Amino acid sequence: MPLSPYWLRDNCPCPECRDPRNGQKLFQITDLPDDLTIVERDERDGRLGVLWSDGHRSRYPLEWLDAEDTGGTGDGRSEAGKRLWAAADFAAGLPEADWAAYLADPAERAAVLGAVLRSGFAVLRGVPAVEGQVLDVARTFGYVRETNYGRLFDVRVEADPNNLAFTSAAIAPHSDNPYRDPVPTLQLLHCLDNSTVGGDSGLVDGFRAAAQLRAEDPAAFAVLTRTLVPFVFRDRATELRADRPLIELDALGRIREVRFNNRSISTLRLPAAELDAFYAAYRRFAAVTLRPELRLDFRLGPGDCLVFDNVRLLHARTAFEAPAGDGTGGSRHLQGCYADLDSLASTLAVLNRRAAALDTIAEFFEGEGAAEYLGEAVTLAEHMLQAGALARAAGAPDHLVAAALLHDVGHFEGTGLELMAGRDNRHSDTGADWLAQWFGPEVTGPVRLHVAAKRYLCTAEPGYRARLSEASEYTLRVQGGPMSEEQAAAFAALPGAADAVAVRRWDEEAKYADAATPGFDHFRPLLAALMR
Amino acid sequence: MPLSPYWLRDNCPCPECRDPRNGQKLFQITDLPDDLTIVERDERDGRLGVLWSDGHRSRYPLEWLDAEDTGGTGDGRSEAGKRLWAAADFAAGLPEADWAAYLADPAERAAVLGAVLRSGFAVLRGVPAVEGQVLDVARTFGYVRETNYGRLFDVRVEADPNNLAFTSAAIAPHSDNPYRDPVPTLQLLHCLDNSTVGGDSGLVDGFRAAAQLRAEDPAAFAVLTRTLVPFVFRDRATELRADRPLIELDALGRIREVRFNNRSISTLRLPAAELDAFYAAYRRFAAVTLRPELRLDFRLGPGDCLVFDNVRLLHARTAFEAPAGDGTGGSRHLQGCYADLDSLASTLAVLNRRAAALDTIAEFFEGEGAAEYLGEAVTLAEHMLQAGALARAAGAPDHLVAAALLHDVGHFEGTGLELMAGRDNRHSDTGADWLAQWFGPEVTGPVRLHVAAKRYLCTAEPGYRARLSEASEYTLRVQGGPMSEEQAAAFAALPGAADAVAVRRWDEEAKYADAATPGFDHFRPLLAALMR
Repeated sequence: MPLSPYWLRDNCPCPECRDPRNGQKLFQITDLPDDLTIVERDERDGRLGVLWSDGHRSRYPLEWLDAEDTGGTGDGRSEAGKRLWAAADFAAGLPEADWAAYLADPAERAAVLGAVLRSGFAVLRGVPAVEGQVLDVARTFGYVRETNYGRLFDVRVEADPNNLAFTSAAIAPHSDNPYRDPVPTLQLLHCLDNSTVGGDSGLVDGFRAAAQLRAEDPAAFAVLTRTLVPFVFRDRATELRADRPLIELDALGRIREVRFNNRSISTLRLPAAELDAFYAAYRRFAAVTLRPELRLDFRLGPGDCLVFDNVRLLHARTAFEAPAGDGTGGSRHLQGCYADLDSLASTLAVLNRRAAALDTIAEFFEGEGAAEYLGEAVTLAEHMLQAGALARAAGAPDHLVAAALLHDVGHFEGTGLELMAGRDNRHSDTGADWLAQWFGPEVTGPVRLHVAAKRYLCTAEPGYRARLSEASEYTLRVQGGPMSEEQAAAFAALPGAADAVAVRRWDEEAKYADAATPGFDHFRPLLAALMR
Repeated sequence: MPLSPYWLRDNCPCPECRDPRNGQKLFQITDLPDDLTIVERDERDGRLGVLWSDGHRSRYPLEWLDAEDTGGTGDGRSEAGKRLWAAADFAAGLPEADWAAYLADPAERAAVLGAVLRSGFAVLRGVPAVEGQVLDVARTFGYVRETNYGRLFDVRVEADPNNLAFTSAAIAPHSDNPYRDPVPTLQLLHCLDNSTVGGDSGLVDGFRAAAQLRAEDPAAFAVLTRTLVPFVFRDRATELRADRPLIELDALGRIREVRFNNRSISTLRLPAAELDAFYAAYRRFAAVTLRPELRLDFRLGPGDCLVFDNVRLLHARTAFEAPAGDGTGGSRHLQGCYADLDSLASTLAVLNRRAAALDTIAEFFEGEGAAEYLGEAVTLAEHMLQAGALARAAGAPDHLVAAALLHDVGHFEGTGLELMAGRDNRHSDTGADWLAQWFGPEVTGPVRLHVAAKRYLCTAEPGYRARLSEASEYTLRVQGGPMSEEQAAAFAALPGAADAVAVRRWDEEAKYADAATPGFDHFRPLLAALMR
């Protein structure tokens, strides 16, 4: 395989080149010599070793070298990462979830956020219909983006509206705030009241409409990708302008963002022939966005919160009856806010990472964990499950239940961290380091110290050593034997010593062949909660 | 001049087509017929009149038709709207202002914000060195953009840093948060303490560096504009990824954004030859960013707040002495936050709009205002200045001083709003509507009602009519004469009646030829303050 030297060196995973805590590179690209070459390379133990012309040595896991990218979808923001849709694709129902389930269940949260990324929207049902609640919804996956409309805006009929949104008029499919750059990439609309006649909601997949235009009239599509349109909003306190194309492509020519809002297109200044071409293309695109088969219609009721991608989906509403002056008749009141896709995608990635970590741990318990455990009467998995169950039975806090359950993960082969980062492979450190990807020090601390705690207890507590199992007595010697009095005093002074000793005691007891222990799934919700 | 029909119609300024309150269009582009043509056109009174094939009529000011765009700079975000710089361009000093002057003087604020837009940065001096103050600085021109680092982040040495920024290491020129999309487009860094050795700041104009690369190696430049680089940040609670080019062009091929941060470039997956080409171009660009002549070095002291464009400028710092464990020696503590360029540009545009409005009003006072005023003994300007001075002498609140000063601006020819928007040209409404672009109803209300107030007073107050000047008696009849009792009662019940009556009394008195009145500039700070 031909290797690009600077690329390979830029990806060196050694702790000199990359901060093990956060993966950030510790060198500048200009720190590398101008004539960098590979002097020697060899493959063994699943790794490519490289000796560089400047004397540096790197080791790369072969599976990393061979890894595919994310299937060409990159950060998932272009059309390549989306599921383009027409209304009929949701004949069986909208992507939606109950608010309570969304809050309680990481899998439900992941499904909702995944729908927003892939389909461009999702609806949460049963969100308390109280003012300001929409900000809490946004906070579950990111940060509110404040604008001239406030952190929160009310969508209802206003006496002196500065925007058509604040009237009872119908609004054709459009995206919001195209005059901002950066435009808010997410919008939330939370329905507090929709007791009026009319006021239904509509969504159109702007990427789908743009793709349709590209298929039917590539020249018109091209015009819309290269014409900078001046979007303007102006009131007494605001004067925003952004010159952006209606259809924005990424550097590989894929649809990446759509801006569409006739209300705020200001005067384009181009030669007349170019204006004719632009307006012909624009009208053609606009006509596509109005095709009934592309428009998904639904009605928001109190407690529904629509979350959607504002650089992809176009949203619309039908006209509604303006509230009567005497307070009779229905009314319509939504509260909205803006947020951004990047944090939503991050939240989803972390949820998925945590779910994958729990899956991996579960696989260890079911696979390698079923093997004999250092000559004990139980398997490694039984031993760890027993330790977790003992901690729970003792009324230990969740983080100690988790530490007891996970204290020996460093014995598993697949964690691999110790080899990758060049650390020693003592199983307590290995396990703690691996777990630190998802758990805080309240969990990893006792795991890291559980071997030291045995050596401490054998010194500090008369009779403790005599109660060790045969295997544990054997490993005690490998691990350095009992601590000296001085070592024991230093250990006892550590802030995490008590937790580590508690875990160690459950560890020692968890070796009974006949104990009935719950399965790993029993602990999964507890671990998921600790991962937050 | 050839005219593009759809373009012209899309820009129709009539109140059916465009909401006079906010300039937003009231129709969809698809509402226009497919075969729209111009049936008739004529030019008169400085306007182009058009009769459309669907029967609609439009009138366009010729000066609008002939207007140039913003000189090709559009929204000012691409290199076309910037002043590209090298360090020597600031030999005479940095763009900076004193915090107190910045707060007090709109011109000072405009200068600072203009520097951020054109040069990419400015420094505010004397900002109180207290925690959280940087958020107040951001609020003077926009909204804080919250990220995983918080609304506010502390730049100082941390025990377990998740970012190189939070160590004492030197950091080469870079932009922040390239793994976000949208990336925060502004950054603020407020110095609370810099008593350490080292820790100086540096800035490089990334647009200038990119333009330099384009001049020296166009092929390398092109590679960097079309290679999507995966920027990644990952810690326990975050997993951000954005695939963006290092140099991003707008649809016209102009440099629009630069992202540059080697620490967070993750593994690029491309064929080896493309990787070689990318890394050669990347290293060449990186070398340009390190040229001493491009790097502006300075030191932030307590109370200095640097505001800079994070999609253009690269920022750097030199290494500094880490604080001693015993608390002796110096330390370095900055607080930072992110914000966005769009709101900053809006704030500047509104400041400029207000300054231009004051200039226009001043020109009216000096030009047309010097003409005879309806046969009175004073000019129109003298009349209005006297009215303002009388209001001030009476201890009236600022908004009534302004209303008295400006009550007759509707007599000026140049305001033009009434013709543009098809309103009638009664001077009280004309003046109030024109002023409403900058002033609130507390100023425009009395202006709008000052003619009605005369008609009211002539009915409600015995002897009032007898005191009118000859010219005022004449215009009273043109304006409809005294109110009926019923009209007067309705007027008196209006919320703004008392203010209007007060302004009217000063209006009536302000007709003395020999009165010494202050000039317009005397009132300018009062008007500027009311425009906020």
